[in-house]
Amino acid sequence: MSLLVAGWVAMDEIETPFAKVTESLGGSATCAALAGSLFTDVRLLAAVGEDFPAGERAKLVRPNIDLAGLVTSGPKTSRWGGRYHYDMNTRDTLYTELGVNLDWTPALPDGWEHSTTAFLAAGDPLLQRAIIRSLAAPRATMVDTIKFFIDGALDDLKETMRHADFVALNESEAREVARTPSIARAGRELINGGARGVLIKLGEYGAALISDEDYFVAPGYPLDEVIDPTGAGDAFAGGFMGHLDTVPVINAAEVRRGVVYGSAVASFCVEGFGPNRLLTLTRDEVDARYREFRRLTYFEAAD
Amino acid sequence: MSLLVAGWVAMDEIETPFAKVTESLGGSATCAALAGSLFTDVRLLAAVGEDFPAGERAKLVRPNIDLAGLVTSGPKTSRWGGRYHYDMNTRDTLYTELGVNLDWTPALPDGWEHSTTAFLAAGDPLLQRAIIRSLAAPRATMVDTIKFFIDGALDDLKETMRHADFVALNESEAREVARTPSIARAGRELINGGARGVLIKLGEYGAALISDEDYFVAPGYPLDEVIDPTGAGDAFAGGFMGHLDTVPVINAAEVRRGVVYGSAVASFCVEGFGPNRLLTLTRDEVDARYREFRRLTYFEAAD
Repeated sequence: MSLLVAGWVAMDEIETPFAKVTESLGGSATCAALAGSLFTDVRLLAAVGEDFPAGERAKLVRPNIDLAGLVTSGPKTSRWGGRYHYDMNTRDTLYTELGVNLDWTPALPDGWEHSTTAFLAAGDPLLQRAIIRSLAAPRATMVDTIKFFIDGALDDLKETMRHADFVALNESEAREVARTPSIARAGRELINGGARGVLIKLGEYGAALISDEDYFVAPGYPLDEVIDPTGAGDAFAGGFMGHLDTVPVINAAEVRRGVVYGSAVASFCVEGFGPNRLLTLTRDEVDARYREFRRLTYFEAAD
Repeated sequence: MSLLVAGWVAMDEIETPFAKVTESLGGSATCAALAGSLFTDVRLLAAVGEDFPAGERAKLVRPNIDLAGLVTSGPKTSRWGGRYHYDMNTRDTLYTELGVNLDWTPALPDGWEHSTTAFLAAGDPLLQRAIIRSLAAPRATMVDTIKFFIDGALDDLKETMRHADFVALNESEAREVARTPSIARAGRELINGGARGVLIKLGEYGAALISDEDYFVAPGYPLDEVIDPTGAGDAFAGGFMGHLDTVPVINAAEVRRGVVYGSAVASFCVEGFGPNRLLTLTRDEVDARYREFRRLTYFEAAD
């Protein structure tokens, strides 16, 4: 069992209404890899620059994260700066410096083509598709994206979605891609486009999973304080795919449990800046929160 | 068993991005009474003007709605005009004409002081409190409000909330009253203020119930199309209180079921303009949707 996580490892500058951090470990693959490693063995495929701090790399050194695919491919690590609004549900991207990701061509280390599952974190849809195709027989794959690629590469993105089992989008992205204000309808449109299941991330309101055979909604975990939402969607994906990588049969019930595991990990992620909280998170804590999700949502049958 | 519903019966003008209606039956008590009548006997306490159309009154004539408290107390029925934005989650109030509600003093018809439950739909907090006090031994009471009273009568409103078992607020109102962006924290602040339970309405994302002993989240029902959100919160309240009026013991499990019944009725309400969909809604349809809510939210225990 092994979950391939491909995407960006970057350095972030994050500003919330309450605090600001610079030189923070970031990137779409970072939180996903850390989250996935709570469930299964993770293989991290990403590029950094020669300026990537040794101290940040050290945070990714964990017993079940294989860093053979974390390559140095040029001088500059990718950088992203963002600022959150008061409600933490919306943010402005201040800048994106592509750095090594401008022309990185990912190459799978020997044997990684046999990864049993794969999460293609936000990145160039053509590269995402190439990686999916290079896998021998993945049991499940998921593609995530960001507005940047919806705006700039929609046709490529839609084609890539057809090659993935699951597609993860946040709510506004789903509405934009499907051109409808209804989440239910947007999900169906995306299914008709070829994805097996669509995960629509609703931020503090939770997540919806829509497939041909199922519709499932998980609430957001009620937090007293959100420190930083950056990476929560990727942490969700890592938990979701990490769980699926471990189950004997990937059926609707396990997919639902995956959504709850993903929600649990994401709810911890926002308790710290960037991936910080994930660095100390334990599987026991995740399982306890999973049980809390059950208590939050259970109700008895009708009369 | 009987649920007292007190509030406004009014005439609305509603504009969505897709349609517009004028001379539509409205008011905070209207949808609540119709929703409650799917569960129990309802007593409607409200004032209209001499201009209130006979055809609109006829819509409220139903086997288990007692209209003895629907009085004509002046020339002009209250009127409200609102316009919804594209996402249907936000609206602008175009005008509010108080009409008879400017100086209406509600008086309970004989015997209504023995109503077993009561919903005080949005209205003057002093009148809401007076009505609660006039009840002999209600098993449960709920107070709702709108931004108008939060802005104009916050101290009176907070005092009224201390006299109610349940308080219903939408998300932005809860944040405003409690002065915190966290829904969990806002709920606790309101509990500390004296309410037994706080229902925070999350629009298309569902509802959260927060009390000293419980935290429950119900998702929004995935609708392909929302025709008009007007009255959905009141329909929710009518379903919630209507269910509680019928149960032998009002405990945490029944409160949770009430939230789901309220969510089910509200999800039908938005399928038509104003109360239109509620006029044809049956209890069987509500029960079927309740079961759908269970399918939407169920997941298995952790490993």
